[in-house]
Amino acid sequence: MCPSRVVLEHVTSKWGVLILIALAEREHRFSELRRRVAGVSEKMLAQTLQTLERDGFVHREAHPVIPPRVDYRLTPLGVEAAGMVSALAHWVESRTPDVLTAREVYDTR
Amino acid sequence: MCPSRVVLEHVTSKWGVLILIALAEREHRFSELRRRVAGVSEKMLAQTLQTLERDGFVHREAHPVIPPRVDYRLTPLGVEAAGMVSALAHWVESRTPDVLTAREVYDTR
Repeated sequence: MCPSRVVLEHVTSKWGVLILIALAEREHRFSELRRRVAGVSEKMLAQTLQTLERDGFVHREAHPVIPPRVDYRLTPLGVEAAGMVSALAHWVESRTPDVLTAREVYDTR
Repeated sequence: MCPSRVVLEHVTSKWGVLILIALAEREHRFSELRRRVAGVSEKMLAQTLQTLERDGFVHREAHPVIPPRVDYRLTPLGVEAAGMVSALAHWVESRTPDVLTAREVYDTR
């Protein structure tokens, strides 16, 4: 698959979208993200954050304290990604009623 | 899954993106789309077009001629969708070099 296709999948993945939108607001700890992104498992959250970190969208900062604390925030590239993705997500949300109407028409014809 | 999530998946799916971008240029026949969207199978193209038609993004017009001719074009809602999706796709493409650099840094640290 071409590289940009893979990146598109990362930023439009279910958890990718929600994590980018949450981090666009402010820095979050892992445990805060876990509560904020409803329904995500610990494993999927860790995996998606790692993917976004590796892609350069998210910066991970582990603080050497007890108990350990890990903060996540967007990089400048991640701020751009979050802006594009949340524009699309908001547009989709605003138009979903039209889509549901279109489906009803399609299904009853 | 919530309905808007499903719609987001339809418009950001691999073939969904490419079909929306092709139809944003102009109306296409099925056979033209098949050539234009490189790598798509006849089955996947038909299936994705049907999904986009049912969602109200694509209008399908079958002409009663011999041999049969079927044209596809965007609806007004589809024009909006194509605009949002191609903006995201172009942004991702323009930033993919930065992502590849970020991955190299991540993988060698």
